[in-house]
Amino acid sequence: MTQRQVKAAVLLIGDELLSGRTQDVNLQTIAKFLAPLGVQVAEARVTADIPDEIIANVNELRAKYDYVFTTGGIGPTHDDKTADAMAAAFGVSIDVRDDARAILEAHYKGMSNLNEARLRMARIPDGATLIANPVSKAPGFQIGNVFVMAGVPSITRGMLEDVGHRLEGGIVVRSRTIRGKGVREGAIAQGLAELEAATNGVVSFGSYPWFAPPDSFGVHLVARSGDIAALDKAAADLMAMIRSCGADPEEVVES
Amino acid sequence: MTQRQVKAAVLLIGDELLSGRTQDVNLQTIAKFLAPLGVQVAEARVTADIPDEIIANVNELRAKYDYVFTTGGIGPTHDDKTADAMAAAFGVSIDVRDDARAILEAHYKGMSNLNEARLRMARIPDGATLIANPVSKAPGFQIGNVFVMAGVPSITRGMLEDVGHRLEGGIVVRSRTIRGKGVREGAIAQGLAELEAATNGVVSFGSYPWFAPPDSFGVHLVARSGDIAALDKAAADLMAMIRSCGADPEEVVES
Repeated sequence: MTQRQVKAAVLLIGDELLSGRTQDVNLQTIAKFLAPLGVQVAEARVTADIPDEIIANVNELRAKYDYVFTTGGIGPTHDDKTADAMAAAFGVSIDVRDDARAILEAHYKGMSNLNEARLRMARIPDGATLIANPVSKAPGFQIGNVFVMAGVPSITRGMLEDVGHRLEGGIVVRSRTIRGKGVREGAIAQGLAELEAATNGVVSFGSYPWFAPPDSFGVHLVARSGDIAALDKAAADLMAMIRSCGADPEEVVES
Repeated sequence: MTQRQVKAAVLLIGDELLSGRTQDVNLQTIAKFLAPLGVQVAEARVTADIPDEIIANVNELRAKYDYVFTTGGIGPTHDDKTADAMAAAFGVSIDVRDDARAILEAHYKGMSNLNEARLRMARIPDGATLIANPVSKAPGFQIGNVFVMAGVPSITRGMLEDVGHRLEGGIVVRSRTIRGKGVREGAIAQGLAELEAATNGVVSFGSYPWFAPPDSFGVHLVARSGDIAALDKAAADLMAMIRSCGADPEEVVES
C-alpha cells in the first residue's frame, strides 16, 4: 500500500446501455469493490460496440489513470468487439490461445460442441493474462493496466475476485453519511462550505437532497476522507449542523 | 424531422456516482425519453464535481454530437459546480438572473428565506434559456446544444418535459426483442452474424445472454433499425432462429 491516491476509470461497453434497454449496475459494483482496496474510480464512460470508439477511449483512459476496468463485449457473437479492440489499442496481435481454449473445452465437453463462435471467446490479445470466470468459464483478461471483464453483472462480480489481488492500492478513502430528515439543502449550504474550507482539502463534503412523495424530504450529508480522525470529526460536525436545524441526525450505514 | 441520424451524449456529473454511493438511473431515463423523438444516445460519461473535468468533457461532447444532456451539480451547495463550469466552457459570464430569481422567490415565499445559498440556484450563464423544474422549482438551463438538468431522478424526469419540444429529431430507431429460453449464445452466433451482414447495415443485431440461478438461462436477441419493414423481417428471422434451436421464441415488449 502506497500513501498516494490511486485512481481508476471504468469503461462500460455496449449498445444496450446507451439505448436504455439495459440499466447498468456494474459501475457501482466495481466502485464499491475497489474503494476498500484503495483504488478510487475517478471517471467512467459508456461506449457503443464500435471498435474505433472503444480503442480511442481505452487509450485515453489507460494513459490518464492507474487502472482501467472494462465490462462487456467479450462474448461469442458478432457484436462482441472488445477483445479485438483491446489488441488494436495495445498494438498487439490476437488469436485463439491455448490456455483459454483449454478452459472452454473443459466446460463445453459433454454439454454441446465448442463451435467456431464459442472459440471466439478464447481469442486473447498477445501478452494478456487471463481473468477467471467462476460463472460461465469464458475468461476475461488483463493487458497492461486494463482489466477486461464480461458485462453480465453476476459474471463481472465473479471476475473481480480474480482482479483484486493484482491491484496496488493507495489511500483508502472512507465516507460517513448523516441523514437529516426535514432539512433543506439551502439551510445548511453555507455551513457545509465552511466546514469543507476549514479542513484544507483533507475532507470533502457532499450534499444529496432526497424527496419521498407526498411530503417527506431531507438531505444526506456525506464526508469523505483518507484520514480517519478527520472523518470522525467531520461526522460529528455534520450531526451538530443537522441538530442546529432542529432535526435529529441519523447516521446511515452504506452497504 | 430530418431523415439523418441525430446523436447525443449524456454527461452525468457527481462524485456520488463514481464512489458507488448512488446508482445512476438517469442515463436510462434520458435514453428512453429521447429514442422516440429520433435522438440516439451515442456516448455517456460520468465525471466528478471537478470544474476542469466538467469543462473539458462538455466542450468535447458538444462539438462531437448534436446534443448534450447533463445531470447533477446545480443545487445550492458548494459541491454544485456545474452551472459555473458551463459558463466557463462557453466563455460567458454567469450571475444571479432575474427570471430564475423570480421563480425561486415565488417558491420560497412563506416557506423559508431565499438565502444566499439558495440564490446560487438562480445563477444562470449569459445567453442560456431556463428549463422548468416542476418538482422543486429551481430551474435547469439550455445553453447552445447543451441541456443542463438536476440529478435527482424525479427532477431530471420532470425537466425532460420542458426539453423534448426543443429538439429536432431524426430517424427514429426502433427495436424488437426476441427471447429464447434455454438457447445459448454460441448456438446462434454464426446465424446472427449472417443475418446482420445480409441487411447491409439497415438492421443491427445484439445478443444478450441471461442467467437465472440455479439452472435457467437463455438469450435475448435484439434487432434495431430505423426501417420498420426491415425490422419486422428481422424479428421474424430471429424467431425462426430460436425455433431452429428447438426453443419457443417469445417477443419481449420493453417498457
